[in-house]
Amino acid sequence: MVRTVRPEHPVSVTVTAAVGGKKEWNGPLGARFDYIDESDRFGKKTWEQSEAESQAIALRLALNKSSLRETDLDAVVAGDLLNQCSSSSYGLMNFRIPFLGIFGACSTPAEGLLISTLMLDGGHYRRIGVVSSSHFCSAERQFRAPVEYGGQRPPTAQWTVTGAGAFILENAPGRVQIDGLQIGRIVDAGIDDPGNMGAAMAPAAFEAFRDFFEFSGKKPADYDLILTGDLGAEGSAILKELALRAGIDLKRHNDCGLMIYDRATQDVQSGGSGCGCSAAVMASYILPQMFEGNVGSVLYAATGALMSADAVKQGLCIPGIAHIVSLKADMKNNRGERAQ
Amino acid sequence: MVRTVRPEHPVSVTVTAAVGGKKEWNGPLGARFDYIDESDRFGKKTWEQSEAESQAIALRLALNKSSLRETDLDAVVAGDLLNQCSSSSYGLMNFRIPFLGIFGACSTPAEGLLISTLMLDGGHYRRIGVVSSSHFCSAERQFRAPVEYGGQRPPTAQWTVTGAGAFILENAPGRVQIDGLQIGRIVDAGIDDPGNMGAAMAPAAFEAFRDFFEFSGKKPADYDLILTGDLGAEGSAILKELALRAGIDLKRHNDCGLMIYDRATQDVQSGGSGCGCSAAVMASYILPQMFEGNVGSVLYAATGALMSADAVKQGLCIPGIAHIVSLKADMKNNRGERAQ
Repeated sequence: MVRTVRPEHPVSVTVTAAVGGKKEWNGPLGARFDYIDESDRFGKKTWEQSEAESQAIALRLALNKSSLRETDLDAVVAGDLLNQCSSSSYGLMNFRIPFLGIFGACSTPAEGLLISTLMLDGGHYRRIGVVSSSHFCSAERQFRAPVEYGGQRPPTAQWTVTGAGAFILENAPGRVQIDGLQIGRIVDAGIDDPGNMGAAMAPAAFEAFRDFFEFSGKKPADYDLILTGDLGAEGSAILKELALRAGIDLKRHNDCGLMIYDRATQDVQSGGSGCGCSAAVMASYILPQMFEGNVGSVLYAATGALMSADAVKQGLCIPGIAHIVSLKADMKNNRGERAQ
Repeated sequence: MVRTVRPEHPVSVTVTAAVGGKKEWNGPLGARFDYIDESDRFGKKTWEQSEAESQAIALRLALNKSSLRETDLDAVVAGDLLNQCSSSSYGLMNFRIPFLGIFGACSTPAEGLLISTLMLDGGHYRRIGVVSSSHFCSAERQFRAPVEYGGQRPPTAQWTVTGAGAFILENAPGRVQIDGLQIGRIVDAGIDDPGNMGAAMAPAAFEAFRDFFEFSGKKPADYDLILTGDLGAEGSAILKELALRAGIDLKRHNDCGLMIYDRATQDVQSGGSGCGCSAAVMASYILPQMFEGNVGSVLYAATGALMSADAVKQGLCIPGIAHIVSLKADMKNNRGERAQ
């Protein structure tokens, strides 16, 4: 079984765009988003259509930032949390770009980057877009209860991010290259509490890191940042404990679910989550920091809880997964100029 | 924009397995399935878990037929129609094979073959499994009404197949090779009737064939069979009319939704559909015919209706998509021996 893959040809992330709502605007990364709609509606009448529109806005912005047209993309790989991944289908259908729908729950942005990297490395495609989104209001009423119900949330619950991230990848050298990837394996940690996704996903993140450091030849110290998707406070604590016991140094670990909101003031319980969480953090903050040469190497493991509301009602556990993408910035070109 | 891709290295389908229920057993292809459960339950208590188990059985059978173990697969690419693709996650989690969840509605089996082919062509992976499933009872209660309700079905409705197909692909020459593929673009034909998926998907199938014949250098006459996923009678008639007007010869067209049931006696209205429909027809019949050297070349376009029940209730249309996989059998090795 092949675990870790190192692309044979250069594949780079050339541009990103991040879209968010009011709570994301009020968070520590708010000013770094490319587009904010404080109404959370993105001009649409239903929450599902609002989320779909957030994907369209993110992809449009990414194309505009790089002066590309729809026809310059050979494919778009997209996913979300809604039933039948409908934010992606409806949000991106008018672009008329060859479309691959994916589902990895909150691991979706990494799954998209990973599949696109493999496709670009194969040499047939030139440029691929990746889009991933979530929306607090569409997720709440689908997975839990309508927001109007005002149900109380346990301290281990995570707050679904309203937002989307878009990425454009090219099969050419660039400022930020993808130099490793690893497809996640599903881990059943026996957790069946949908109010504690962090605990369900942390063991998958741990296994992913353990395998990656075993098979890639890389060490934790090779990275400036070891970033998980959205384990939140609860899941991050479990991951660190598992890593400590296994002798894996996660001193440089941070979690997108802890970065996007201020837990002290924003009442988000254990932190952010959703297909839009690490997508927006990567697109608004991490990758721009790499483009500017401020961060050299990032090991990004987006985690997902592969549950459905029906499965949990039927007494099943919540399986977790974590896909890994390793990113390296060209620190020699750190003056904001595009490397060639 | 790159449309059609021809793999640079040999990628072959080495083995398939098909699983079905009672109605599939009673259909024209019944005897060709590898495994039938006439109770449709596959040993589980809920329809959702039954569907998940059908995926597990299909993959297990495919591994057994080729004397492979789980660890011989570098990845499994899987999808289904259920919310959050839960049949795939729950059905395949115990295999512990690196897992990529995909969603393309009924186009899922072709999307899986296509992504796997690109991954294998890239040279990093050796063997990948593809699994796709649907279940009449889990789909009915999710998309329409519980089966006990006994709602009347319009003549354009399609019957969701209870079944799963599994495929194992290798980056090596073999009896059946994938010699072309094309990622679908989403087509909005303005259809908003969930009782007429065929009409929603046919324009996407037409566009896919038109593009493929334009960009691949292939002609319809190069194929023994031009196969759509599951347009049913209604969608197939629309596809043929669109092709006729455009001067594309679809004389050798057939549709998996028309092949899996006997419409005259099985009361399936316009025909079969679902992520398990073309998966089971390809795995039980088409690919085995190619393995045996009876069919030389197949152009397989699996169609999907990228809808969700919520989107339709909100007045949105049903977007269609069609992914294409072109398959070629080695007719020189048609004595049941494995080509090398």
